[in-house]
Amino acid sequence: MRLYDHPASGNCLKARILMRQLEIPYESVPVDLFRRETRTPEHMARNPDGRVPVLELDSGHMIPESGAILLYLAEGTPLLPDDRLARAAVHQWMFFEQNQIEASIAVARFLLATGRGDRYRTLVDSLVARGHGSLSSLARGLADERPFIAGDEYSVADIAIYAYVHCASEGGADPHDHGTIGAWLERVEATPRFVNDLAPFPEHAMSAS
Amino acid sequence: MRLYDHPASGNCLKARILMRQLEIPYESVPVDLFRRETRTPEHMARNPDGRVPVLELDSGHMIPESGAILLYLAEGTPLLPDDRLARAAVHQWMFFEQNQIEASIAVARFLLATGRGDRYRTLVDSLVARGHGSLSSLARGLADERPFIAGDEYSVADIAIYAYVHCASEGGADPHDHGTIGAWLERVEATPRFVNDLAPFPEHAMSAS
Repeated sequence: MRLYDHPASGNCLKARILMRQLEIPYESVPVDLFRRETRTPEHMARNPDGRVPVLELDSGHMIPESGAILLYLAEGTPLLPDDRLARAAVHQWMFFEQNQIEASIAVARFLLATGRGDRYRTLVDSLVARGHGSLSSLARGLADERPFIAGDEYSVADIAIYAYVHCASEGGADPHDHGTIGAWLERVEATPRFVNDLAPFPEHAMSAS
Repeated sequence: MRLYDHPASGNCLKARILMRQLEIPYESVPVDLFRRETRTPEHMARNPDGRVPVLELDSGHMIPESGAILLYLAEGTPLLPDDRLARAAVHQWMFFEQNQIEASIAVARFLLATGRGDRYRTLVDSLVARGHGSLSSLARGLADERPFIAGDEYSVADIAIYAYVHCASEGGADPHDHGTIGAWLERVEATPRFVNDLAPFPEHAMSAS
């Protein structure tokens, strides 16, 4: 398998964490989103939305979207429960992540960590407030000493949420301000073969202004 | 089953469309998000993220998040393929919808259609631009005369995407400006038992300023 990948992308990190934990060998093909390599006709043919990650199967079939990649790879493994209700809880938190956490914290992280915070101040303020709101919701979901977000077992929902929550401070919202989240981050990091290799934004992503 | 519901919510509309198409009887329980009824302790116990829709099963179990509800209810029906690759395509477009379409068009629609456009002009401009970007991606996904977004068959991915795309003009981005989308909307609306009962925002949601 090939992963069209970027080292500073939290969405790509999700696929990398899972493939290491499942011991699936793969080739990482860097696509430099900061040089707009994700928007070329060649990459658009892999993913009409022009983003990474995209997983290329040995058959040549392409799977875009981090959530779809996680669910595809985890099928039949302990990281995705077969039980219909347990699976619904995994889905619930994965959709929440894309709609609330990623849409706020990932965008704020990009703007702040690449020197665009002042230029887009109103937008950043709105994103940071939404980021804190999403962390409050996550903390409520982790209350009652629930060990993992979808229940007693570690799942791909934990991987999906870890990606932007562990670095949420770079997006202006410290996860340790939100009760139960710090201990949950540690439990995720203690799972077998867990590696977080998220890279800082490259120099050429930095705003010139 | 009970659906904690709001008539003007596109996310709730998705569940209503599917339950009618699958002929699943349910009771709609209105939760007035514009009166903050979604943020009460009672509703937070149903969904820690304090939103609608939430599906309550006859067992009392709660399923929040429109995407999780669609996948739960469609399991074992023709609207969710069993084939692993075909299912990955459904997931791909459902995550895209929550991350790109909903996070831009739904928020812009709320701000513009309730009279908050001037007060949040910078944010609205950014959301409208992102809305057009997401519709461009959708139009690329629908190219090559693909009848439905995940392939030849109508699926819950079409329902998920229909909800905010059919009313995207209210969010400042006309879907008919984007090639293949108009004909796809008509194909979705022509599926058996399809009913779009999305309501306008209520008077008390309108901004006073």
